[in-house]
Amino acid sequence: MADARSFNHLSGTFVKVSTPAHGPVNAFHEPFWTELGQVFDKISQEPTVRAVVLGSALPKFFSAGIDFSALSFPNNGSDPARSALQLKRHILGFQDCISAIERCPYPVVVAAHGYALGLSVDIISACDVRYAAANTIFAIKEVDVGLAADIGSLARVPKVAGNHSLVHELAYTGRNFSAAEAEKMGFVSRVVEGGRDQVTAAALEVAKLIAEKSPVAVAGTKHLLLHSRDHTVRENLEYTAVWNSAMLQTQDLMDAVKAAQKKQKPKFGPLGSKL
Amino acid sequence: MADARSFNHLSGTFVKVSTPAHGPVNAFHEPFWTELGQVFDKISQEPTVRAVVLGSALPKFFSAGIDFSALSFPNNGSDPARSALQLKRHILGFQDCISAIERCPYPVVVAAHGYALGLSVDIISACDVRYAAANTIFAIKEVDVGLAADIGSLARVPKVAGNHSLVHELAYTGRNFSAAEAEKMGFVSRVVEGGRDQVTAAALEVAKLIAEKSPVAVAGTKHLLLHSRDHTVRENLEYTAVWNSAMLQTQDLMDAVKAAQKKQKPKFGPLGSKL
Amino acid sequence: MADARSFNHLSGTFVKVSTPAHGPVNAFHEPFWTELGQVFDKISQEPTVRAVVLGSALPKFFSAGIDFSALSFPNNGSDPARSALQLKRHILGFQDCISAIERCPYPVVVAAHGYALGLSVDIISACDVRYAAANTIFAIKEVDVGLAADIGSLARVPKVAGNHSLVHELAYTGRNFSAAEAEKMGFVSRVVEGGRDQVTAAALEVAKLIAEKSPVAVAGTKHLLLHSRDHTVRENLEYTAVWNSAMLQTQDLMDAVKAAQKKQKPKFGPLGSKL
Amino acid sequence: MADARSFNHLSGTFVKVSTPAHGPVNAFHEPFWTELGQVFDKISQEPTVRAVVLGSALPKFFSAGIDFSALSFPNNGSDPARSALQLKRHILGFQDCISAIERCPYPVVVAAHGYALGLSVDIISACDVRYAAANTIFAIKEVDVGLAADIGSLARVPKVAGNHSLVHELAYTGRNFSAAEAEKMGFVSRVVEGGRDQVTAAALEVAKLIAEKSPVAVAGTKHLLLHSRDHTVRENLEYTAVWNSAMLQTQDLMDAVKAAQKKQKPKFGPLGSKL
Amino acid sequence: MADARSFNHLSGTFVKVSTPAHGPVNAFHEPFWTELGQVFDKISQEPTVRAVVLGSALPKFFSAGIDFSALSFPNNGSDPARSALQLKRHILGFQDCISAIERCPYPVVVAAHGYALGLSVDIISACDVRYAAANTIFAIKEVDVGLAADIGSLARVPKVAGNHSLVHELAYTGRNFSAAEAEKMGFVSRVVEGGRDQVTAAALEVAKLIAEKSPVAVAGTKHLLLHSRDHTVRENLEYTAVWNSAMLQTQDLMDAVKAAQKKQKPKFGPLGSKL
Amino acid sequence: MADARSFNHLSGTFVKVSTPAHGPVNAFHEPFWTELGQVFDKISQEPTVRAVVLGSALPKFFSAGIDFSALSFPNNGSDPARSALQLKRHILGFQDCISAIERCPYPVVVAAHGYALGLSVDIISACDVRYAAANTIFAIKEVDVGLAADIGSLARVPKVAGNHSLVHELAYTGRNFSAAEAEKMGFVSRVVEGGRDQVTAAALEVAKLIAEKSPVAVAGTKHLLLHSRDHTVRENLEYTAVWNSAMLQTQDLMDAVKAAQKKQKPKFGPLGSKL
Repeated sequence: MADARSFNHLSGTFVKVSTPAHGPVNAFHEPFWTELGQVFDKISQEPTVRAVVLGSALPKFFSAGIDFSALSFPNNGSDPARSALQLKRHILGFQDCISAIERCPYPVVVAAHGYALGLSVDIISACDVRYAAANTIFAIKEVDVGLAADIGSLARVPKVAGNHSLVHELAYTGRNFSAAEAEKMGFVSRVVEGGRDQVTAAALEVAKLIAEKSPVAVAGTKHLLLHSRDHTVRENLEYTAVWNSAMLQTQDLMDAVKAAQKKQKPKFGPLGSKL
Repeated sequence: MADARSFNHLSGTFVKVSTPAHGPVNAFHEPFWTELGQVFDKISQEPTVRAVVLGSALPKFFSAGIDFSALSFPNNGSDPARSALQLKRHILGFQDCISAIERCPYPVVVAAHGYALGLSVDIISACDVRYAAANTIFAIKEVDVGLAADIGSLARVPKVAGNHSLVHELAYTGRNFSAAEAEKMGFVSRVVEGGRDQVTAAALEVAKLIAEKSPVAVAGTKHLLLHSRDHTVRENLEYTAVWNSAMLQTQDLMDAVKAAQKKQKPKFGPLGSKL
Repeated sequence: MADARSFNHLSGTFVKVSTPAHGPVNAFHEPFWTELGQVFDKISQEPTVRAVVLGSALPKFFSAGIDFSALSFPNNGSDPARSALQLKRHILGFQDCISAIERCPYPVVVAAHGYALGLSVDIISACDVRYAAANTIFAIKEVDVGLAADIGSLARVPKVAGNHSLVHELAYTGRNFSAAEAEKMGFVSRVVEGGRDQVTAAALEVAKLIAEKSPVAVAGTKHLLLHSRDHTVRENLEYTAVWNSAMLQTQDLMDAVKAAQKKQKPKFGPLGSKL
Repeated sequence: MADARSFNHLSGTFVKVSTPAHGPVNAFHEPFWTELGQVFDKISQEPTVRAVVLGSALPKFFSAGIDFSALSFPNNGSDPARSALQLKRHILGFQDCISAIERCPYPVVVAAHGYALGLSVDIISACDVRYAAANTIFAIKEVDVGLAADIGSLARVPKVAGNHSLVHELAYTGRNFSAAEAEKMGFVSRVVEGGRDQVTAAALEVAKLIAEKSPVAVAGTKHLLLHSRDHTVRENLEYTAVWNSAMLQTQDLMDAVKAAQKKQKPKFGPLGSKL
Repeated sequence: MADARSFNHLSGTFVKVSTPAHGPVNAFHEPFWTELGQVFDKISQEPTVRAVVLGSALPKFFSAGIDFSALSFPNNGSDPARSALQLKRHILGFQDCISAIERCPYPVVVAAHGYALGLSVDIISACDVRYAAANTIFAIKEVDVGLAADIGSLARVPKVAGNHSLVHELAYTGRNFSAAEAEKMGFVSRVVEGGRDQVTAAALEVAKLIAEKSPVAVAGTKHLLLHSRDHTVRENLEYTAVWNSAMLQTQDLMDAVKAAQKKQKPKFGPLGSKL
Repeated sequence: MADARSFNHLSGTFVKVSTPAHGPVNAFHEPFWTELGQVFDKISQEPTVRAVVLGSALPKFFSAGIDFSALSFPNNGSDPARSALQLKRHILGFQDCISAIERCPYPVVVAAHGYALGLSVDIISACDVRYAAANTIFAIKEVDVGLAADIGSLARVPKVAGNHSLVHELAYTGRNFSAAEAEKMGFVSRVVEGGRDQVTAAALEVAKLIAEKSPVAVAGTKHLLLHSRDHTVRENLEYTAVWNSAMLQTQDLMDAVKAAQKKQKPKFGPLGSKL
């Protein structure tokens, strides 16, 4: 069983979330990803959090992906239709756990290192900012076990990166790709020399920077960027006008302007009482 | 007050639009962006224009963004709902000025240099072709004044660039980023060695090249590329078939074919009478 | 007339499709693109195919694009409305031939080399994986003959690449661009040193790798990636759950797991009887 | 020329807008529909308006539709492409005038009577609440002059009514249909015995009732109903939550609750200062 | 085998299409619906057709729906995934035959009578104008054979009618419903006293009326109404402006205006040469 | 507190859900609607349920709507932005409870009677089949307490009914409307003479009929009808083909065909093990 405490080290204005060790390769089984979703849904309700860093506690593996040996497929005997209805619900539940990262109102910075295979890519693509250690080895591995990736890689990687040709190649072949290739295709924004510790330090640094900003502005920015990804420019502009019609009434804006006039760094309160 | 003449130097087949000096840092206040919208709407109706270049007249600043000291927020006393309705209308009006660049039927080439902060990025992302001098320093600055960017940066930057991780990082932190980083993420297509004069020369060069082409073909290309950004491939293909069912009846096509047979450079008339 | 046999060399688990020589520059006329569509629709029904490679048989030209000298525009006398209805149907038919590449259930790897102009880009952008020889010279040439590209370049290139500024520039100017520039903008995923033979060899290599994978997994991956391009993340996740509710019942998944346990390479049957 | 004063009788909490007499059949020419748009855009900015009633001042005609004798089509000589670009802009401008009714933040109740042909149906379908005198004779007349209705009837009538078969029949044949048939198909919500005066009285009555309600609640209801028409249930629910996150902070809600406790009729202030 | 000739009685300006006798209840098997699609695709290319009437040649049955005894389901042995891929293609092919009615550019008026069960409703809902004899008995029958209707009833009936509650009830129960109930829910626009002959006469009458109108206007109206059904008002208005930018250049408009001035009935030529 | 047992009377193949008495007018407070959502989510996981009937246990009230006296609005002091974020989450949570009816895989038949005000309409519009006793008095009441209905009425009523004019009028005025008017506008499919007992009996009857059908077919029909409401015809047809590619492999189809051949009534097993 995963260690719940290690998921949720609240510390002032940021949170370090580490996937706990599950065997030597950090493989995922159902209780593990269920817990991942619950931890992120819990973080989402913490009004003092400002940014989240997601990393792995193991030195060599971000995660080896799903532990297929621990997987039991729903089975409804001989009726493929009834089996399909069960499987659909199962997949939707699984997706929902990983999408907890996306629906978390705070930016999530992921620090990848070592082997980051299969489900790792689904998880990493649901984060906001992606940093990779130079030693990271990624793979969209699902095709090698006879299935199309269904937990988010095919939904999100083509949208967050900028080279569909490479995304298709990687998804069809399941081959390993390096941090450098991930950066070239626009999947990660920074490759950090070294391994786990170096990339985690870099991720914490950017998370701290984010944590100093107005939480109203940061939460709005995440919300509107995700809306932008899934809507036209016109729809997004109109939605943004409605969103900011409430958000521009925030005290943070006045505080920021006043601090600017005094050439001081502004300080912003948390998002408030329990969300 | 902005100098209207400097906005609109019509010169044969192209237009140079320069944001006029507003103090030493070219900061924007409401009359300034209102005028920007009006100038582009006026250009949109000039039947002889072929391409537009947008640059700043100042040597060190493209623009420092909004001049917050000149900003007055609509206020409706103590009712947040009535204030929100006013703010929404205000934001929509502001967006509409910047979107005048996008609804201009002619390609707009922007030449960025020096500091290009806050609203600069909203403006630049609404252009068609983005060139940056090597000395350009960009920032999606809005988060530093307590708000999510609402005039277009969050709507357009993720769609025109190819690295969502970097877009998120820049939007959450408000940090400066260089021309090189802008090129790496796919936000600009060319970094020009030097500063304002060099990048403007390069932008004018590409604008001149565009101005030699059939204006029916160029206007159609802009219109269809923007449609493509906001629709599925299938929707865009069908729309394109309807669009070109009229456009293929143009004389320009025949002129181009004939000139090609004579190994001459074709000459195309303007889009015609007042649009 | 194109040589039908050369289109369809079925060979075990992959297919090499070569555009046949049509004059010295491989220019396209209507029977040629009609045949291209028919060949891909035929491949789509072959249950033993696993992957497709598309290349040109000529040493110096992928294709010079449309042969305008052979083009006859539908004409309905003096009524522009009736002409438009004819032209619309004509364009939709033409698009449909090229979209046969996209609706082919198997991944299509394109190997570009030499001159790849005009219609070449429409065709290449409809493929899944794009490789280019270092000697490739691309151009979105349509603007030079007085029209906006209407067979797919404007619909697909901005979606598969990661730099809208460059896409706009290339589409407005019709200028040549190199394999290196194509890679920088995210249009191709690999530049292969050399020319036709070298890039074809590289494309065949990746096609062979794809052909070893479960065809259920690969076909699902292509289908879901294309769905992802044209839908929101949420829509795609839900669709994927329905899709995989049937696909996870495949024997291939069990075979893959068993082979993994035995540390063997799995072997997968074809998609089955005639599709 | 239309009589501007008769368009805009501000009277306390509601507005009566009457299309002025233009000849004996109230036919529309360009200055007339331009004025209609301007009047509605002006009303939209009046902060004390609560509801709008639209009717005709003539006894026998709501309107005979467009006055074709006064129509001049843009013409650009012999190039159908350039003519098409002009016509597109012309149609968009015309549509924009009629859509001013829809973008007006206050509910618009239309009182139809007598002949309500062609453009009448475009106008009536853009209103919120449709009442018809029993003597009303409608027709989607455009097909009789050789064109598909392009100012809103085909866009809106199928969405606001509940019988596509009848909508198609009426649009293909251009035949007259009665108030009773309009009610049967769900196009009007009430048929009022009598003619102009009776239906106007009924429309004013419902407008007065609307004008007593909270303007924050009414404006939100119109905005969200129009959003609902053009979005999925899920999109609309999420948008509504953002919208009401500001609107529920209104004083009107507290005033309504307090009045209810005192068993009094609440009184609400106008939407406030100039919108 | 269906009698191809009886499908396609071209007669001046309209077409009567009758489903031929297939046994005493006009049940559909695969060659029958394949032919239905082919006939409509053939009609779509006939440039002189103006309107289509669809009816049944049998006195008591419009159609009893699919003949399940003649149905062979694709089967791929024991792999549900491979079977699913086959079935998907099969269903898409079947849908495509019925959708030929919708993609036919000419209005299709359907005359229903007697039993109109199962597939009948899929077919009828794809038509433009629906007339029913008073003796018609409809049923969305599919649930009774263990499947959700997948050829169009669930896609189209809720969109063309105006009572979702009744549509859901009929689709869940498979119960019979009368012509009167069909009219009440907005599924048909006219109930004709009598049976086959009376409803066919009424359908022919409206088809003749349509056939007198400008074919440019009528084809545009059908195209834009179908676009309207599947797009927002704003999208449809913009699309309409592009569509009519070519169509308003038609000679038919001038002919209509001139005929109106002379108080004559205009005569319009066919859509022209082969589409 | 609501009585949990009375929500969930499982009985063979159908479920009767009654809103329990909460005071004499069945008003809703937060624990009540939270429970409503939980009960429906629980029903959704019961594999033996076939259909659900929703009614009120009180003789005179379906429900008087929200009990405003028990309502506490989230409040975050003086910052309207932080309050808005809280309110948004609150509204989304409330909506989610009512949408549990829609996401329940089994058809929900609602039996309305007596006063059905405010939140009642939100609830009723989320059901599949709507029956009303002749004595039912509906009202979209929210405008009377100073807010736009945000729990589903504005999202769903215009889509399920067929007269937008009446929907707008009812939503702006908050006036009562009768069962007859609800039927005229297409909001209910049947008006049952009498009151609570009569309409409940009629609803149970149709639920029993539904419960005899194949649960695979019925669940698919509900899923596809909801998909159809929110997608284009083309999207829905393609989705349906994927959905039925698994569902047509059900044993129920074979059982239905066999029973038909034997002229017997088929018997179908439940959807199976725990969903």
